Amino acid sequence: MNEQQSSKRPNPRVLSGFRDFLPTQMRVRQQVTGILRDIFERFGYEPLDTPTLEAIEVLQGKIGQDEKLLYRFIDHGGRDVGMRYDLTIPLARVVAVHANDLVLPFKRYHMGPVWRADRPQKGRFREFWQCDADVVGTRSVIADAEGVAIYNAVLSGCGFTDYAIRVNHRAVLAALAPYAGLAEADAVTLIRAIDKMDKIGPDGVKKEMIERGISEGAADKALELVGITGSNDVVLEKMRDLLKAIPTAQAGLDDLEHLFAYAAALGVPEGKAVLFPALARGLDYYTGPVYETYVPEGGVGSLGGGGRYDNLIGALGGRDLPATGISVGLERLLVVMEERGMAGATESVTQALVAILPKDDSLPALHLAAELRAAGIHTEVTFEPKRSLLDQFKYAERKGIPYALIAGSDERAANTVTVRTLATRAQQQVPRVDLTATLHRLLNG
Amino acid sequence: MNEQQSSKRPNPRVLSGFRDFLPTQMRVRQQVTGILRDIFERFGYEPLDTPTLEAIEVLQGKIGQDEKLLYRFIDHGGRDVGMRYDLTIPLARVVAVHANDLVLPFKRYHMGPVWRADRPQKGRFREFWQCDADVVGTRSVIADAEGVAIYNAVLSGCGFTDYAIRVNHRAVLAALAPYAGLAEADAVTLIRAIDKMDKIGPDGVKKEMIERGISEGAADKALELVGITGSNDVVLEKMRDLLKAIPTAQAGLDDLEHLFAYAAALGVPEGKAVLFPALARGLDYYTGPVYETYVPEGGVGSLGGGGRYDNLIGALGGRDLPATGISVGLERLLVVMEERGMAGATESVTQALVAILPKDDSLPALHLAAELRAAGIHTEVTFEPKRSLLDQFKYAERKGIPYALIAGSDERAANTVTVRTLATRAQQQVPRVDLTATLHRLLNG
Repeated sequence: MNEQQSSKRPNPRVLSGFRDFLPTQMRVRQQVTGILRDIFERFGYEPLDTPTLEAIEVLQGKIGQDEKLLYRFIDHGGRDVGMRYDLTIPLARVVAVHANDLVLPFKRYHMGPVWRADRPQKGRFREFWQCDADVVGTRSVIADAEGVAIYNAVLSGCGFTDYAIRVNHRAVLAALAPYAGLAEADAVTLIRAIDKMDKIGPDGVKKEMIERGISEGAADKALELVGITGSNDVVLEKMRDLLKAIPTAQAGLDDLEHLFAYAAALGVPEGKAVLFPALARGLDYYTGPVYETYVPEGGVGSLGGGGRYDNLIGALGGRDLPATGISVGLERLLVVMEERGMAGATESVTQALVAILPKDDSLPALHLAAELRAAGIHTEVTFEPKRSLLDQFKYAERKGIPYALIAGSDERAANTVTVRTLATRAQQQVPRVDLTATLHRLLNG
Repeated sequence: MNEQQSSKRPNPRVLSGFRDFLPTQMRVRQQVTGILRDIFERFGYEPLDTPTLEAIEVLQGKIGQDEKLLYRFIDHGGRDVGMRYDLTIPLARVVAVHANDLVLPFKRYHMGPVWRADRPQKGRFREFWQCDADVVGTRSVIADAEGVAIYNAVLSGCGFTDYAIRVNHRAVLAALAPYAGLAEADAVTLIRAIDKMDKIGPDGVKKEMIERGISEGAADKALELVGITGSNDVVLEKMRDLLKAIPTAQAGLDDLEHLFAYAAALGVPEGKAVLFPALARGLDYYTGPVYETYVPEGGVGSLGGGGRYDNLIGALGGRDLPATGISVGLERLLVVMEERGMAGATESVTQALVAILPKDDSLPALHLAAELRAAGIHTEVTFEPKRSLLDQFKYAERKGIPYALIAGSDERAANTVTVRTLATRAQQQVPRVDLTATLHRLLNG
């Protein structure tokens, strides 16, 4: 672009906080969302999608103090509208609008972008994807256990081995204050401090509790409860004993006991679903079991979580129905998988380039490409048959295409195809009849 | 919801021109976009995605008279932004912004929503999907033929048999006026009239030409040219003869001759790619071969088309690069496939419901579900084991789940599972070891 042109045309750019996904990134995103979709569907969750724009009354008053992050504007018809902020508010609206069309319990997954006018920073974007799987319309703890089992399938399906799903219960968290001899109003102070356990350790948590006006004795009692360790059975037994005076806590521990039994039956391996009394997750939101993934290796931390929220669908404008579900932190999952080289997507979608000798007829190459495509092999034909073979190979190398094929007049006379492995520049002659089988073997090997 | 609540809460609704996609619709959309993705990738097109919002200077001045349909607003940072209007302007911007990262020719497909503040009407929405596959950076007619071959694969892949891809060339259209003895400025009048051929026939077209000031003799000459029929070879030969005095037309006919040979080699069956001199498509946009699908059966008409647009990427703010590609009319394709019952998606994502006898232990059912899921069978477990079996079956019937499984204590003692076909209510005993194989056979049969 010369000076004159660039003065006329402002430099094209991408808005801050927004991203282009070029093919290499898209392929990783497609791979991971494909894994998630497959897992959600194996568990019988059905796909749902909702509009990008909603009438403002659908969104307003349901986001809390972050409502200022809502992308909101007046459309051409003078309607006050907002861009989708999360996937839970639309779920509540769908449950309300389509009440007559949905069979309850409604098991749905939803993967798609949401928009928040947040300050962009490393790993935080204004447009990012959420991936949620929820069940609306059942109080069954089997549904909660399914959330844990889905998370286990997601983490192992994405190739993680060193992970745990930490599980707790809202009723156990709520019992902290009475157990420590404190008023219910102090629960939030206790839980906020406990939420920092991973970062500052029990001593730091105790110090913070005391700074916020909790007596040392009460802090010790709260830390005693959340500090219980051991197998799930051991922790459950100790908590049952310590909380025996608090009936709601006993009911919560019953839920957890069932949840762990169900999760094990659903195939969650021993040690992957862990009762973690210090897990403090969204108190003003959850009403039953809560869980969060924890990947210690490389300081990954949490990749999402979930829990039961029996009052939320009604509060968000849906019908008053119990619900439970998970949210997968897709963007974070992608970053971690890319950093660790866990995403298996190849550089190029194309698996084979059919080259054409500069003076040769193009048609046999197109025939060959059609044959390979029919066999499911992603195939390009060179668009520049007049360029040298080396130039054609260079194009394939730059794009990351693994194999180049030559079927010139010599090969055609011998009923063979030359297969060039671009990474090693090694070439082999393959009988034409064996070509698709050979390529399938090379590509899957 | 009682009166008091409904007075506080306005009825939740979906904005006019926007749609929820409930699971049954989503499954058809996923099925069709899956077919498209598979075809695009077999041809070596790579996935791309771009932001929903763009800086206004990326969009402004590039849409023409429909720019008023752009969703445009001022964001929180005072930036003038617009919602994606199509997938071509973002392609041009990507080519400009990522010039150093893209290997040319750049073959990309892009499937995603675009937004237009149009008057909603039957089949026209404010949020709808486009599916484009384009190549940027080559003048090769092989690339144009690939567009035709992709369209052929899309239509046959979606189950159409009675279709044709009508092909023409911008240079042939441009030759109409000189051939009819008219000034270049009259070309638009001729082409606008010819564009109505399917609707009003040759007599209507002639009448319109004359009404718009074309002499009867010139109208007859233009209609003679676009009325040529016969095999592609015959039409090409007749046009070569009639247009022998117009060199640009001869070059266009050369392109078309190559295009048909390439398309045949790429597997497009005889009679599916048809030279159609009356195809008038986007004169101010295309520069070379153009094509449009045509499905006569049931008055479907066009499901999209494509062509070469060598000046557009530069004009839209990208680099000055030649390009060609197709756009699949996904929304229309979906309507037609649904109307004709061509979409094969089953009612429910779930293939089997594991029922639980009201007084039975839940855990064996969860074990069974885990086994089926591991075998790739989409499986639900009842969340309401205390309900009667008939209630559980009713749930499955209402959701459209094809099979219910019972593995109660009798079955467990006999190492069998009862498989109930919900549509017929027939039940069979299947040995537990054969269960996944039996279900795979039933589901694929």
